[in-house]
Amino acid sequence: MSTQKTEHRSQCPIARSLDLFGDKWTLVIMRDVLFFKRRTYGEFSRSGEHIPTNLLADRLKRLVANGILEQVPYQDRPPRYRYEPTEKGRALKPVLQAMARFGENHLEGRRSER
Amino acid sequence: MSTQKTEHRSQCPIARSLDLFGDKWTLVIMRDVLFFKRRTYGEFSRSGEHIPTNLLADRLKRLVANGILEQVPYQDRPPRYRYEPTEKGRALKPVLQAMARFGENHLEGRRSER
Repeated sequence: MSTQKTEHRSQCPIARSLDLFGDKWTLVIMRDVLFFKRRTYGEFSRSGEHIPTNLLADRLKRLVANGILEQVPYQDRPPRYRYEPTEKGRALKPVLQAMARFGENHLEGRRSER
Repeated sequence: MSTQKTEHRSQCPIARSLDLFGDKWTLVIMRDVLFFKRRTYGEFSRSGEHIPTNLLADRLKRLVANGILEQVPYQDRPPRYRYEPTEKGRALKPVLQAMARFGENHLEGRRSER
């Protein structure tokens, strides 16, 4: 069984972070979780950036395998899960805040109120 | 001529940041520039993470096209360039610092003294 636990290419804490979330989607999902209180597959897939469903499924699996999100069942038939941030997941907030500031100051980004 | 200037998928400043540097290598290069004072193609390619040369060339082109790095010639024959951070490039420091803290606290990363 593949757990999708991330392998690390060096000791550097920046490179290790990028091994885990160095892609275009992982931190968009974590933005939804930490700032917009989204929790379900359906909520993530309706975000304005339109994440492809195969990538969403892959990233959620990886975030769970790496202890960033926790999968909590909320319905039996059919089985449905919500994704709650762990303490490790909530520790990504300063990374997202620094990126938000960079995007606002240098990429003409605007925060949404959703 | 393709400038490799990044297109943005939404107004969100986090998504816009990821459009620009959401990959495994761009911020490793910026770490080298901003913390280890590396400036040349040769110095970047000798980093411990062993960036493939085609990806290094692509990322440097993209960083220059997006005003993060500035290409400065330092030798004529053969032509050689060094890459200096712009003000916009230096503004990535808080993002890298937040990632370094996350990697140290949650991914067993260790800072190097290089």
